[in-house]
Amino acid sequence: MDWIFYPPWAFFLASAGQPSELPLALLLVFGAAKLFAEIFERLRQPAIVGEITAGILLGPSVLGWVKPSDTMSALAELGVMFLLFRVGLEVKPSEILEVGRSALLVAVIGVMTPFFVGWLAAHALGYQWIEALFVGAAMVATSVGITAQVLASKGYLHHPASRTVLAAAVIDDVLGLIVLAIVSSLAQGGVNLLDLGLTALLAIGFTTIVAIWGNRLIVRLLPAIETNLSAMEARFNFSLVLLFALALLATYAGVAAIIGAFLAGMALAESVGHREHDLVHGVTETLVPFFLVGIGLYFDLSLLKNTTLLGVASLITILAVATKLASGLGVWNRGRADVFRVGIGMMPRGEVGMVVAQLGLVLGVISSQTYSVVIFMAIVTTMIAPPLLRLAYRGQECRPSERLQIV
Amino acid sequence: MDWIFYPPWAFFLASAGQPSELPLALLLVFGAAKLFAEIFERLRQPAIVGEITAGILLGPSVLGWVKPSDTMSALAELGVMFLLFRVGLEVKPSEILEVGRSALLVAVIGVMTPFFVGWLAAHALGYQWIEALFVGAAMVATSVGITAQVLASKGYLHHPASRTVLAAAVIDDVLGLIVLAIVSSLAQGGVNLLDLGLTALLAIGFTTIVAIWGNRLIVRLLPAIETNLSAMEARFNFSLVLLFALALLATYAGVAAIIGAFLAGMALAESVGHREHDLVHGVTETLVPFFLVGIGLYFDLSLLKNTTLLGVASLITILAVATKLASGLGVWNRGRADVFRVGIGMMPRGEVGMVVAQLGLVLGVISSQTYSVVIFMAIVTTMIAPPLLRLAYRGQECRPSERLQIV
Repeated sequence: MDWIFYPPWAFFLASAGQPSELPLALLLVFGAAKLFAEIFERLRQPAIVGEITAGILLGPSVLGWVKPSDTMSALAELGVMFLLFRVGLEVKPSEILEVGRSALLVAVIGVMTPFFVGWLAAHALGYQWIEALFVGAAMVATSVGITAQVLASKGYLHHPASRTVLAAAVIDDVLGLIVLAIVSSLAQGGVNLLDLGLTALLAIGFTTIVAIWGNRLIVRLLPAIETNLSAMEARFNFSLVLLFALALLATYAGVAAIIGAFLAGMALAESVGHREHDLVHGVTETLVPFFLVGIGLYFDLSLLKNTTLLGVASLITILAVATKLASGLGVWNRGRADVFRVGIGMMPRGEVGMVVAQLGLVLGVISSQTYSVVIFMAIVTTMIAPPLLRLAYRGQECRPSERLQIV
Repeated sequence: MDWIFYPPWAFFLASAGQPSELPLALLLVFGAAKLFAEIFERLRQPAIVGEITAGILLGPSVLGWVKPSDTMSALAELGVMFLLFRVGLEVKPSEILEVGRSALLVAVIGVMTPFFVGWLAAHALGYQWIEALFVGAAMVATSVGITAQVLASKGYLHHPASRTVLAAAVIDDVLGLIVLAIVSSLAQGGVNLLDLGLTALLAIGFTTIVAIWGNRLIVRLLPAIETNLSAMEARFNFSLVLLFALALLATYAGVAAIIGAFLAGMALAESVGHREHDLVHGVTETLVPFFLVGIGLYFDLSLLKNTTLLGVASLITILAVATKLASGLGVWNRGRADVFRVGIGMMPRGEVGMVVAQLGLVLGVISSQTYSVVIFMAIVTTMIAPPLLRLAYRGQECRPSERLQIV
């Protein structure tokens, strides 16, 4: 265990130290997340923003009771994997492929605009070109987990705009990988076009094949598998093996593990029943708070004291909001309301933007100040998207009977 | 992430290394566990033994694909906490208190016999007295998780023998704490009787108070809490907060976190419904394989090559089996069948015995050879209990309709 805590009362109570570490971490993270979810709900704000706020408060920058650690990261990653898996379970591949063309347009605008605007703006603000490129790349990211959680918890998943966002986020991840591959190659020397082509081909190939044929394969295979398995909860266990396998293959193909999790869910959408939905939902409810608190942990409040840096961070954040809103124009033919729904849905950068910033830090091409700026942008875009989403979707709820069937 | 893997094919496939680490770990552990569960089911052996076997194979002693690590331990601990929580949810406190007297007798015999027999036997085998004391203390442990999993999955939880085992395991943990406190104090110098008395008082006080009053408090509080919470799945989230809080308090009181988890489940048994059962079951199904594989990881096959050591380990294991069987005599008035059911139910030492061995290693009072012997005893007793339990309970299944209601 390497969670690090300093709640003052722990010293008085802990007898042996070690065995209380994990339960203390679980209680602090889960309890604070749910407490703030409740407070925010009462203030008519999204619960998800409350849980991220809990992370900011628990984190090193305020109370310092919980610090990022391996165990925390593993629980957070598992949480967001299950979240995307659950969302995938509720989406039929046909529904996603239907919106494929407009999603592609949304994703392309949503990658190109933030990247070039971010790069040029950062360069204009005085950053070196390679550092500016990383700022642009971080602005490309889309944290589909945040949007998916809001849409799923409110019963909006089946709205065409929601399906467009999900499809666009998958494509966005593939395009984002290519952008990041180019930027990191530049940071390390030069771009090898053959390597780059192979990377792109592998990512696109994996995603397309699983999205199109995964479902058909499972629909045929699962009945045969089920009748041959004698263990209990065979369908649920098979689903989890598929989830972990596709998450792993996704990382081998260069895209995020959560994209594999989403594709696994989608491949199973027509084959699993209420029972599996409920079981997966239990895991999601338990672990998603670790993902949300985990995002908040990285917030660095000391940035707010440095006026110049705060100015830069605010400007970058405004551009990050505006450029992703622009991606909504990919569905302009569906009316202004959907343009906003899609644009806001693509807005949160969350953990994906943070990973880019960390990579830049590891490669030594961005300063710790730029890192703070990117983290600020990633967290602020993540926290303003949920209330905006609720506004944009107002009046689009399913009727309660429908929603019960879905959730 | 600090899981360490060396599957040879990972080197060919992994692109970036880092992002595939967690999904690879999840797939290997969960996939292997379920594969072996299936194989063992087909051979008419308990699935649980298959999952531990998967851990032995994946572990450092055979394939070396997975090593014990912080993340692995955290998932395993979370898994066994949810397992005991789920079992607690199915047991009403009145059912446990009813069997309290016989359970106390079972626990006392089940602590004293293995401790003194283990200590004297180890001393007779040539161990120094402090090392022999630790062997005895490790033989005291009861891994209630293993027994609970077998009983719950087969629908035996409501049998009087099962309730006796659960109650005795809780008391066993408290008595085991006292034994371990004495032994560790001896290893570090001397026994402070005041400290020891306080330790015992705290452990007994916490367990008794929560077992007797927890349920009454929750039955009164929960309706009020529920009507006042506006967040979704409020009852489930409240249950998890209680679970983590009691697990933490249990460690502060000196007993194991899983005892707190069990007491939390029992306190909620009359207040939560099918929905919460299903959600908790999802988490349990997902994480318990990490607990079972985690036990197997510690197995050291090289011990089998050293004939003397293997002889010592086998003798200790036979004594460990016999002395816990003797604890079944606490229910001699209920007939021979129940004596066996209870005795076998108390048999697995699992992770609890291993923790004692590790403590001995850390305190520098047992050698690495003795450590291997204790681990061997802990794992073998854990693997022979499930098939014996199935034999002992044969014909005691609930009718399918009852079982559906329970599970």
